[in-house]
Amino acid sequence: MRRFVIFANKAVTSPFNLNDLPGSAGRMDIVCRFISQALFISHGIRREVDVYAVLKGEPDPIKVLKFEGKSLRYISPDEKSIGGMINKALKARTSIKWREISPGVWISKKEVAEIIKELSELGRVYYLREDGEDVESVEFREPVFIIGDHLGLSEKDERAVLEVASEVVSLGDKSYQADQCVTILNYILDRRRVD
Amino acid sequence: MRRFVIFANKAVTSPFNLNDLPGSAGRMDIVCRFISQALFISHGIRREVDVYAVLKGEPDPIKVLKFEGKSLRYISPDEKSIGGMINKALKARTSIKWREISPGVWISKKEVAEIIKELSELGRVYYLREDGEDVESVEFREPVFIIGDHLGLSEKDERAVLEVASEVVSLGDKSYQADQCVTILNYILDRRRVD
Repeated sequence: MRRFVIFANKAVTSPFNLNDLPGSAGRMDIVCRFISQALFISHGIRREVDVYAVLKGEPDPIKVLKFEGKSLRYISPDEKSIGGMINKALKARTSIKWREISPGVWISKKEVAEIIKELSELGRVYYLREDGEDVESVEFREPVFIIGDHLGLSEKDERAVLEVASEVVSLGDKSYQADQCVTILNYILDRRRVD
Repeated sequence: MRRFVIFANKAVTSPFNLNDLPGSAGRMDIVCRFISQALFISHGIRREVDVYAVLKGEPDPIKVLKFEGKSLRYISPDEKSIGGMINKALKARTSIKWREISPGVWISKKEVAEIIKELSELGRVYYLREDGEDVESVEFREPVFIIGDHLGLSEKDERAVLEVASEVVSLGDKSYQADQCVTILNYILDRRRVD
């Protein structure tokens, strides 16, 4: 299994206008691209991937989304299709327990500490940061990658992640967008035949 | 310089509804993501990249778009922002000569043979296909990458590309989406410090 997690600092936590993902939805476009790039390959969905999005925006933070590759249906790789699914999830009543909104799409309401604890029990946590260990020299097992959005992780969230992280890793000299990090990591794992 | 070219078999050649990129615009979402992934990095635009999109859909094929990293402005990485720029270009009168619609955004009306000839004079042409030479063992110089959309290249277009291609290259066993191919190629070139 591969798991990818994005911390979306401004992404809203109530239903939003699908025609304005970058603006009033709090850069929800970044979340949509992240989910798309993690799960889709040509003509199919990666069944070995789960994606998490930690939505920290107003009015009802924090909500956590989970998209499970193994059971996902009714979704296309474009931003609006994924945004529509997120919108559907944000309309539902949420609690700390995961609730399935559509095949493979789950939502819950959790504190950062809770979701990080849960993730750390699923595999080894790798935190992506520009000054980390070069990814080319890191061996990945049951990876859970934690990636910031355009604002990065807050100091408090970063401290919580570092407490459980096996390693801080970097993709090299360039600073990539969150969704590009996922595409590159999927490629590296494909090459190494790590599932 | 790096150049990325997508052949978009169904992408429409007249203004379209920005809220329906995958449907009535003929999978224009693929073109938007391709352009976005080629040009954007975290907090900036890759000035060393040009992107071309060969639009082959109705009602007025073939139109060719060019997005030049070095002078591009007024654009964001989300599908709708890029779609809006394409829409603006498709509203303009076109001829075989390139016409600049907005800083760094150009459009022209060309046959496939003409655009391929032009591209082959700009650098070395690498055609991406699943059965090509493994990218990891290919050396790239002034690369012009030609990539198909979800339908691939037509037989006729492929013959024209193969006539000028230096090499047919592959990203490995997995079949990636066109925009993912670009992200991975940018990463590989970044690593090798090829600009």
